[in-house]
Amino acid sequence: MEPNSKHKALWGGRFEKSPERFTQEFGASLPVDKRMWRGDIKGSIAHAHMLDAQGILSHEDVVAIVDGLEKIKAEIDAGEFEFDINDEDIHMAIESKLIADIGEAGGRLHTGRSRNDQVATDTHLYIKRLSHVLAGHLLELRLTLIDVARKNFGVVMPGYTHMQKAQPILFSHHMLAYYWMFSRDFKRMTNAFEAADILPLGSAALAGTTYPLDRSFVADELGFSRIYPNSLDAVSDRDFLLDFTYACSVCMIHLSRLAEELILWSTDEFGFITMDDSYSTGSSIMPQKKNPDFAELVRGKTGRVVGDLMGLLVMLKSLPLAYNKDMQEDKEGVFDAADTLEDCLRCMTGMISTMRVNEGRMRQGSLGGFMAATDLADYLVGKGVPFRRAHEIVGELVLSCEKEGRTLQSLTVEDLHAHSDYFKEDALEAVDIDKVVSKRTTVGGTGHSAVENQLEEAEALYNLDTELLSTF
Amino acid sequence: MEPNSKHKALWGGRFEKSPERFTQEFGASLPVDKRMWRGDIKGSIAHAHMLDAQGILSHEDVVAIVDGLEKIKAEIDAGEFEFDINDEDIHMAIESKLIADIGEAGGRLHTGRSRNDQVATDTHLYIKRLSHVLAGHLLELRLTLIDVARKNFGVVMPGYTHMQKAQPILFSHHMLAYYWMFSRDFKRMTNAFEAADILPLGSAALAGTTYPLDRSFVADELGFSRIYPNSLDAVSDRDFLLDFTYACSVCMIHLSRLAEELILWSTDEFGFITMDDSYSTGSSIMPQKKNPDFAELVRGKTGRVVGDLMGLLVMLKSLPLAYNKDMQEDKEGVFDAADTLEDCLRCMTGMISTMRVNEGRMRQGSLGGFMAATDLADYLVGKGVPFRRAHEIVGELVLSCEKEGRTLQSLTVEDLHAHSDYFKEDALEAVDIDKVVSKRTTVGGTGHSAVENQLEEAEALYNLDTELLSTF
Amino acid sequence: MEPNSKHKALWGGRFEKSPERFTQEFGASLPVDKRMWRGDIKGSIAHAHMLDAQGILSHEDVVAIVDGLEKIKAEIDAGEFEFDINDEDIHMAIESKLIADIGEAGGRLHTGRSRNDQVATDTHLYIKRLSHVLAGHLLELRLTLIDVARKNFGVVMPGYTHMQKAQPILFSHHMLAYYWMFSRDFKRMTNAFEAADILPLGSAALAGTTYPLDRSFVADELGFSRIYPNSLDAVSDRDFLLDFTYACSVCMIHLSRLAEELILWSTDEFGFITMDDSYSTGSSIMPQKKNPDFAELVRGKTGRVVGDLMGLLVMLKSLPLAYNKDMQEDKEGVFDAADTLEDCLRCMTGMISTMRVNEGRMRQGSLGGFMAATDLADYLVGKGVPFRRAHEIVGELVLSCEKEGRTLQSLTVEDLHAHSDYFKEDALEAVDIDKVVSKRTTVGGTGHSAVENQLEEAEALYNLDTELLSTF
Amino acid sequence: MEPNSKHKALWGGRFEKSPERFTQEFGASLPVDKRMWRGDIKGSIAHAHMLDAQGILSHEDVVAIVDGLEKIKAEIDAGEFEFDINDEDIHMAIESKLIADIGEAGGRLHTGRSRNDQVATDTHLYIKRLSHVLAGHLLELRLTLIDVARKNFGVVMPGYTHMQKAQPILFSHHMLAYYWMFSRDFKRMTNAFEAADILPLGSAALAGTTYPLDRSFVADELGFSRIYPNSLDAVSDRDFLLDFTYACSVCMIHLSRLAEELILWSTDEFGFITMDDSYSTGSSIMPQKKNPDFAELVRGKTGRVVGDLMGLLVMLKSLPLAYNKDMQEDKEGVFDAADTLEDCLRCMTGMISTMRVNEGRMRQGSLGGFMAATDLADYLVGKGVPFRRAHEIVGELVLSCEKEGRTLQSLTVEDLHAHSDYFKEDALEAVDIDKVVSKRTTVGGTGHSAVENQLEEAEALYNLDTELLSTF
Repeated sequence: MEPNSKHKALWGGRFEKSPERFTQEFGASLPVDKRMWRGDIKGSIAHAHMLDAQGILSHEDVVAIVDGLEKIKAEIDAGEFEFDINDEDIHMAIESKLIADIGEAGGRLHTGRSRNDQVATDTHLYIKRLSHVLAGHLLELRLTLIDVARKNFGVVMPGYTHMQKAQPILFSHHMLAYYWMFSRDFKRMTNAFEAADILPLGSAALAGTTYPLDRSFVADELGFSRIYPNSLDAVSDRDFLLDFTYACSVCMIHLSRLAEELILWSTDEFGFITMDDSYSTGSSIMPQKKNPDFAELVRGKTGRVVGDLMGLLVMLKSLPLAYNKDMQEDKEGVFDAADTLEDCLRCMTGMISTMRVNEGRMRQGSLGGFMAATDLADYLVGKGVPFRRAHEIVGELVLSCEKEGRTLQSLTVEDLHAHSDYFKEDALEAVDIDKVVSKRTTVGGTGHSAVENQLEEAEALYNLDTELLSTF
Repeated sequence: MEPNSKHKALWGGRFEKSPERFTQEFGASLPVDKRMWRGDIKGSIAHAHMLDAQGILSHEDVVAIVDGLEKIKAEIDAGEFEFDINDEDIHMAIESKLIADIGEAGGRLHTGRSRNDQVATDTHLYIKRLSHVLAGHLLELRLTLIDVARKNFGVVMPGYTHMQKAQPILFSHHMLAYYWMFSRDFKRMTNAFEAADILPLGSAALAGTTYPLDRSFVADELGFSRIYPNSLDAVSDRDFLLDFTYACSVCMIHLSRLAEELILWSTDEFGFITMDDSYSTGSSIMPQKKNPDFAELVRGKTGRVVGDLMGLLVMLKSLPLAYNKDMQEDKEGVFDAADTLEDCLRCMTGMISTMRVNEGRMRQGSLGGFMAATDLADYLVGKGVPFRRAHEIVGELVLSCEKEGRTLQSLTVEDLHAHSDYFKEDALEAVDIDKVVSKRTTVGGTGHSAVENQLEEAEALYNLDTELLSTF
Repeated sequence: MEPNSKHKALWGGRFEKSPERFTQEFGASLPVDKRMWRGDIKGSIAHAHMLDAQGILSHEDVVAIVDGLEKIKAEIDAGEFEFDINDEDIHMAIESKLIADIGEAGGRLHTGRSRNDQVATDTHLYIKRLSHVLAGHLLELRLTLIDVARKNFGVVMPGYTHMQKAQPILFSHHMLAYYWMFSRDFKRMTNAFEAADILPLGSAALAGTTYPLDRSFVADELGFSRIYPNSLDAVSDRDFLLDFTYACSVCMIHLSRLAEELILWSTDEFGFITMDDSYSTGSSIMPQKKNPDFAELVRGKTGRVVGDLMGLLVMLKSLPLAYNKDMQEDKEGVFDAADTLEDCLRCMTGMISTMRVNEGRMRQGSLGGFMAATDLADYLVGKGVPFRRAHEIVGELVLSCEKEGRTLQSLTVEDLHAHSDYFKEDALEAVDIDKVVSKRTTVGGTGHSAVENQLEEAEALYNLDTELLSTF
Repeated sequence: MEPNSKHKALWGGRFEKSPERFTQEFGASLPVDKRMWRGDIKGSIAHAHMLDAQGILSHEDVVAIVDGLEKIKAEIDAGEFEFDINDEDIHMAIESKLIADIGEAGGRLHTGRSRNDQVATDTHLYIKRLSHVLAGHLLELRLTLIDVARKNFGVVMPGYTHMQKAQPILFSHHMLAYYWMFSRDFKRMTNAFEAADILPLGSAALAGTTYPLDRSFVADELGFSRIYPNSLDAVSDRDFLLDFTYACSVCMIHLSRLAEELILWSTDEFGFITMDDSYSTGSSIMPQKKNPDFAELVRGKTGRVVGDLMGLLVMLKSLPLAYNKDMQEDKEGVFDAADTLEDCLRCMTGMISTMRVNEGRMRQGSLGGFMAATDLADYLVGKGVPFRRAHEIVGELVLSCEKEGRTLQSLTVEDLHAHSDYFKEDALEAVDIDKVVSKRTTVGGTGHSAVENQLEEAEALYNLDTELLSTF
């Protein structure tokens, strides 16, 4: 293994030996953190401008630095920049190129900062961007759910608890339940944005610096609304990464629930939806198979994101102040969570917007399972029977129907009478599936009018959140 | 095993057999959820009042119900209520007692609601209470950190990165770093409060109800500021429990970091603090031992809270809508997280407020480790040496000091000259520990004036947060 | 808060203050570890006998100690022992009672040991017992699966991949798939037993002791087959707890998979099984509901056990040698995992042995989904068509059947001919469901003869494992 | 987005549309599973040979297939194979190349198998290889620990509990504690090897096949010692991946503990070791810094491996039989765990073998902390004082020493007398650090003779395990 002389040069006055190839690769974060290059350059330019404004560096030096950085930015954008693993991390990669390009002035850029506050700044910028992008994808999925709910308004399906048929509901109501989940995810994601929206730069290695930095100047230029009030905290806080990864995890849990339902509904047994061919795959051996692979993948990928959150928590446990190298491990899992969630949101939006809703199978399913039983019991309560007794009467009725293979809708008034004298002619209305649905008009209920109101509330929140995101 | 006839009566019209003892105990949540009894009664009273106002129940019935519930409340408060495992959960326990006490009217209380929206309502109320209590404990700990920082203002200690001595800092600065962490925890905890502050009641089993309920009435009476707009979501949303448990987990991570430092500082090697005897224990075999047991316990308990979060995430993964019995498993872990965090916060507040700060050991430690090296390098930069070159010169200086067993403070101007001509008489000032600290006056830095400003900012936020909590 | 004088007495020579009530309760492990009392006494008796044999204590003292311990054991067994939170842990509770009962000799019992090796020994004994008990429950569940497979031999059901109907299989084959999972769990559980089967006692606090202990004597008396070769490791090793909790976690994952299927099969849509009333519950509001609550609980409880494993891993991360108080947190999660798994195994065994298998629904389901398509393709291959081409032909056939709403079984030879000239009269046999199953006779396949062989293999392993467990 | 016609061809008879670019990339596992190419080819060759031997394919076809596969293998080895994301996974990538190369015969290779049993087979082969490699690295680390223990035999250091100085121990004893941990990891790793050592091939998609396969033939050719007895289990079992990732996780926990100690020992305060320059890094801002970066990275990487385990558990929770696409997510985390552990083991071996042991600092540390107190108490017990009383006397002695700033070694017989009449002239011997160590001669103790025995036991196990691994 050949030694690497570059590092000797950078922090090596105190060192007698250079690291070897294996340790260098083991220690390098470049392959992971290079995707933050844009923020690194942006942060360096803001730092340079401030050093200029404060008279810490000469104007000439700063002009050279900024020009040099802009040139590097153009090179990376054009795919012409050669990343070298010897450069350990993205900061070194860019700085050593800058020094090579513009000479001594490049070395002065690092005045009054440290890699500790620099990497923290890059990461804050990057999380702001990621949370912005993901919040956007969440908006798209929410809009898709509203669209599907609007388009299929009036379609009745069985509602389940314990996966047993419970009461008939509107399919739109079911879709909107997910709308609200993803709206909470949007909130968590914007919380994560706000948690990241605080500037660490100016904290130097851990204790602040003796240079007369103007941190507000830098915050303004980089678009941060707050500044860390404590330099130790600034370089060792990873809460904003936890908040972000947590937001991703909960969203994945929601996606896993929706994916589970899409998979169930795609079975031969349920048949409520047909996945579009573009979101299905076949089998190499069984010619008849059409598998909801993508919904399964979304469900399966939940694990890795939860694992990313757990990894981050374990990493941070028991770490003393301030920066420790353990923290270099903060990014890979977070980026994985972000990438995974982005793919899954896109995929879910695609599946939902292209699936075929099989209204007939849903209605047919709604007739089974004695789902009007609650309304029959409520009918008896209306006639003065105490609820617990009404519940019992209808329970016995269901048991006898089940034994005889009959549905509630097939019963005559005489059949009902046999179970209770309180049943009159109008009892037959109580088992009409559409009426069972439409009568549930309390706020949040599945009745048509209530769901129409809910749709309007959903749209209003969608508009508000869209506006909010545009201000970020 | 003897069968249990009570359940046959409650939902048994459809059933031919009763559960046996083992399954009943396995299925019962009473031992866990009975601590929510106060909210359960409060919710029932609000529901009854609304049924009265809406004319769904007669005024007489509601008077009887409310009186009956108040009586049960008094009994539980007095410890005279007998909880019976046959009652499956707290709702059944209270309702069956109510029916036993006041007869048929008691059976009418359940009109227009289900255990699904009832348990959700109880849990929301309870989480609002828990997050309120924990936010209060966080305020206490924050106040304690401010106090300790104020009381020991001026004490200098080594600042570390990679657990290597880096730069001298004020002990107050170090304490305040934790202040900001716990301030973020306070924010997360109040976020959790807000996430819980939404009323599920009125969603019935899953689909809403045909009774003309007034959900706003109930929300007002129970102090909820919002109402779930979707009944399916209302009975199956557990995000607020995730948010709460997540807030607990991150706070435990912070406590584990502080505990780790207290343990380190209590070692013979560091000796920075002496734990009060009341927060120390001895050994049954080694007479000299004085162990920081309580700090270790706080650190060790981090695992269980992270485990509670993990458990909740796993439970929710892939669950279809709406309520599933799996969700009964939502409370035990959450309560464990809350209880654990409460104990740990109290314990940490106690440890911090009673520990002895060993100023002498801290100062002595600050002289080691060549911590003025950065300032020596900055000195050279001030004389016109490029930073990277200055860094290298001082690195070599450190290496030679280390070999000769000298500190930077012991060097003469001649010694310095040997390494660089740029070193002049005033270089000796650059290695004065107190000056090294006091010069770091940028915002968030460890300089005395900066820390004084930081203390004021911390106090202002403490006052704001105290006021905020009082409005909950 | 009143101080507690007891601890001052036990390790207090070096202490000037006593712990207060709150810290004492926070620090006490008695509520959790008292369930290990039997092992604690057993371990103490073995230790005493050894001290006698080695001449370290007088025979009279040891007789008094052993008699005293036997008396305490009888008291606890009879429920007459008063546990006092002042006693911190089970070791102190028993030892202080012993001293109170027999005087000074009781104090000598602790000679040559420490609470560190004592609690480790108790825990090893307890895990050996727990893993033995759980392995027994696993055997019961495995026997139940064999029974169900035997009793329903010949019942055909759809086999699924991606939750899409794939190929028809024997129901017995499906049940046996779980048999093999639980057989692997049995292996992991016995591995956990073996990991716990090593004696820590004799390691004292961390470094061994100056007393001439005979550790083999103690190992023999307590039934340990090995002795820790390193005292530091002996008091700080918690791998055996990880192994045990991991074994519990994987078994819970398997149970969650089986529970998921039972829940699915209980839906109105699948209808493959009917859960016994004793493993079902109803709804307080919907009279028709019969919910598979217990299967849902088993599935839901998976989270807490995985959380217990996570908690233990987090607790251990970064702990330096040797014993740290963090380790006191090792037991509660482990006991929770053990209790949960025991309940879930019992519950699953009960559900499986009492459920009704609806052969008709399974057969009906097997006719849907074009599950004979693979065999039709294989038929073509048999006639010389390359597999990929045969796959394509049958895929088109399925698509046209689906559009026309026909099953493969309804096709005539002419229909087949329209898709490929290779189809002859005997092609109709290829779509006969029973033949499709019975032809899969390769080792491990679902053909009747192969499953019969599999059943025999399963029984043989069951017998071997039963024998193995009896030797523990 | 351009459609992809390749998949239409492979499983597309039933499909009317082709997947688009995004879903295709989302669904593809090729970037992850291509590293299993060697096993995929090996498995295909064995399958082909068996098809030949059983007369299922013609000998000519098999010769063409095997030659074709060997050619592809040579191409991949030479880096000349072009992987195409259109090929979804490694199986498709190789098979479609084979068909392109040799024509129709290539299409016949898939006879009697499915991607479900094929990917399972590849993964089993790969895990066998990974666990073999990692077990080898564990052996190296164990050997290094033995070497360091041998080389530094006799060096005395403080032993800690609760991070407080407890009793002096041999440094070799401390190193060997880790030896035994890693020996248990070796056992877990070989268990994982054995769990993977079972052949799934021959199970086809889920139900076995109608072709007269000889599974034993394939098992022999591929070196599997067992065959899955159930085809459903064979394609959906991921226990062996859990076992492997669990083994990695526990090993990482052990590494985190050792890393934590190396970091502690490298502090200015402890100073017990000096990390080699090749395992240290500097600071870009603080010239004096020499950071134990690599030990920190090892500690920090623990989180990701634990996260990988959690991810896998979450993915598997609630999955019904048999294969589901979720399972495609099984590999990335497992490979990450394996790669991470391999790097960390190499890094730890390097750090341990190159670090400088500072005997002087260790001995100096051993004089502090009153570590001979237990021996003083034992001395009193030897004179007839009951242990609890002796403990108390010495506790008071320590307290007074601490107040006067004296060590136990500085006390005279008169000083001792002041605390108890039982102290005689020979009491001074009890506080001699070397004697305190050497007297602990019980099995597993830190006495020189006991540690010598332990070293021999460690070497014997090392030899056994080396031999064992060579048989894999």
